[in-house]
Amino acid sequence: MWRSLRPIGRSDASGGYRRYAWTGADADCRLWFQAQAEARGLDHEIDRNGNQWAWLGDPLAGDAVVTGSHLDSVPDGGAFDGPLGVVSSFAALDELRRRGAVFTRPLAITNFGDEEGARFGLACVGSRLAAGQLTTEHAHRLRDGDGVSLPQAMEAAGYDPDAIGPDPERLARIGAFVELHVEQGRALDLRGDPVGVASAIWPHGRWRFDFRGEANHAGTTRLADRRDPMLTYAETVLAARREAELAGGLATFGKIAVEPNGVNAIPSLVRGWLDSRAADQDTLDAVVSGVERAAREYAERAGIDLDVVRESFTPVVDFQHALRDEIRRVLEKRGADGAATVPLLGTGAGHDAGILSASVPTAMLFVRNPTGISHSPAEHATEDDCVAGVRALADVLEGLACS
Amino acid sequence: MWRSLRPIGRSDASGGYRRYAWTGADADCRLWFQAQAEARGLDHEIDRNGNQWAWLGDPLAGDAVVTGSHLDSVPDGGAFDGPLGVVSSFAALDELRRRGAVFTRPLAITNFGDEEGARFGLACVGSRLAAGQLTTEHAHRLRDGDGVSLPQAMEAAGYDPDAIGPDPERLARIGAFVELHVEQGRALDLRGDPVGVASAIWPHGRWRFDFRGEANHAGTTRLADRRDPMLTYAETVLAARREAELAGGLATFGKIAVEPNGVNAIPSLVRGWLDSRAADQDTLDAVVSGVERAAREYAERAGIDLDVVRESFTPVVDFQHALRDEIRRVLEKRGADGAATVPLLGTGAGHDAGILSASVPTAMLFVRNPTGISHSPAEHATEDDCVAGVRALADVLEGLACS
Repeated sequence: MWRSLRPIGRSDASGGYRRYAWTGADADCRLWFQAQAEARGLDHEIDRNGNQWAWLGDPLAGDAVVTGSHLDSVPDGGAFDGPLGVVSSFAALDELRRRGAVFTRPLAITNFGDEEGARFGLACVGSRLAAGQLTTEHAHRLRDGDGVSLPQAMEAAGYDPDAIGPDPERLARIGAFVELHVEQGRALDLRGDPVGVASAIWPHGRWRFDFRGEANHAGTTRLADRRDPMLTYAETVLAARREAELAGGLATFGKIAVEPNGVNAIPSLVRGWLDSRAADQDTLDAVVSGVERAAREYAERAGIDLDVVRESFTPVVDFQHALRDEIRRVLEKRGADGAATVPLLGTGAGHDAGILSASVPTAMLFVRNPTGISHSPAEHATEDDCVAGVRALADVLEGLACS
Repeated sequence: MWRSLRPIGRSDASGGYRRYAWTGADADCRLWFQAQAEARGLDHEIDRNGNQWAWLGDPLAGDAVVTGSHLDSVPDGGAFDGPLGVVSSFAALDELRRRGAVFTRPLAITNFGDEEGARFGLACVGSRLAAGQLTTEHAHRLRDGDGVSLPQAMEAAGYDPDAIGPDPERLARIGAFVELHVEQGRALDLRGDPVGVASAIWPHGRWRFDFRGEANHAGTTRLADRRDPMLTYAETVLAARREAELAGGLATFGKIAVEPNGVNAIPSLVRGWLDSRAADQDTLDAVVSGVERAAREYAERAGIDLDVVRESFTPVVDFQHALRDEIRRVLEKRGADGAATVPLLGTGAGHDAGILSASVPTAMLFVRNPTGISHSPAEHATEDDCVAGVRALADVLEGLACS
């Protein structure tokens, strides 16, 4: 499976993946998914929001067990973030068939559309739409960096943008959703465990900081006459790190846009995006309000106009305790690797599972990432750990869906 | 003249100009220049490097007096930087004809190509090529942000890129080159003078700082595990300001490129460009070595790899004292505005005149800029000062080229 998926959307320059929603690489990933489904005799279906489903058993029977993840990527992302969950789902089904498992509930494997939000700036669009956490109107207003709207992009890819919207009947037929994902930190590595179960997704959000100064010639404007927003941006980047350390959360300025962005021009505008997350809401509030307060002080002192806009926000997600505990019981009972306990981990990353957890009993499995590196071509999981992940997912699905 | 030039390459969004070399806006500016030449009965000519010439008298006679500037712009530049010199040249010729001046030397008006370097990252390409300060090989390797090479761009605009190269015979036929330019600082405004004469162009250069860290997920990577090059970049931006203040020079980080530039991705690469200038070489050296030393310290502490590349450098340009003093004498003698002395100004901005001064006796006139703002739509000169500039240029040309 990996062999046929690996070349799709891979950049020769970076070695990373550029599988953005509704592009050619995305279409190729979708064809790959459909071929995997058909090769296993599963019924392939695309829902109104462009998410893919591969069904074993009757989709309308209800109480289905669903597993899967996403196939799109961040810019120059790694091979595992998303695809590991989809590949492992198909592999777990193969494993269950080898075991001769008898399914008592319908099973589906999914590929959720546009999870990373790399193109339109909003993550988990496919699952948000299905769960009613993103309105059709808002989705229709999303535009990519070239000004192409989401409806235009969907239409160009052969989908009907007028069909998108909440899908409560579909979600009501799901009894449990389990997403397997490569870990995006080093918690499992530090513990020495190949597989863990998610406890919660940290609250997180994105804030846009617009620093506006005065464009001017870099070679002729006296320092005293300048209103240079790059200086205020730089002070704010350092403040963000300081506030995150103080409060014990995370804060990152990883994306920037500068106007006019000329070597010999003092910028008129520096736009920086703050990504911040923390284990709880109070800590997150402390980080973000600390950064904003510092930025406003710097801006005022330097004659810079500052606008701060919250572009997205997701509150803390606590995965359903009953499902989570059942999964741990299954894994600890069947644990072929002899692990006495399966660790519970929180995570700072958003997932479709986090979105769906508001509507459906949801759980997540993590597979060890020996470096913790994520959203990079250097992201990794060993073959042994991937096999352990498949076996764990098969165990969970067997425990949930088989007699 | 202004009326027909004003709409070309103007952005409705910013109100600034986007006249980049070998684009459609540039072609329109060139057609405008040709039309102005032909309307005055001048012989229009394009040299091997794409610079435009409008001749009164025999181009081959030698000892020509040449005036002009450029019509291209920085991103969202103002209306005056470049065009004021070209428009004033044509207007000064009109004024001299009104005066009934009799020309004893050939006169040419020029539009030098790609002065700002906004597209290919190197300033004064047209004059550098002519003066042999940019090799054909180097020019052929220049690429714009979309990967289009200079030869491809020239060819698309209908020019022959194989013809470019040094043009010593042409320069040898020039007895004096005078460029009028809007001032890019506030020195004339602070003195209360409408027009000044250039003494020198400060030494200046561009250095590219490549900060390489490790791409990672902004939501899951512990602060302690990060190698985030944005932090080192921010520290370096602040160090540049500090070093410039200490040494009494200028330092600016106005252009940045980030990879992967995603909101939820710690960058793998932050590339920042330092523009630095100072009144003398020692001061410039102090600023740049101070910034580099600070950046290397920050980078080492944070586990960031740093490469610093000098992308361009122009040593101090002292304009020819004989021509400069002759021009001041002419202006002080004829000065209709009663100015007893015409001020001499240094400038931090590069110009075609600075390039040509190595090959040709060269001088510059500056016209007052009441705000000092440059490389911005807010750049300005009053109508009275523009008229004073035209009169001064006419006086200079009459003194140099007429009996």
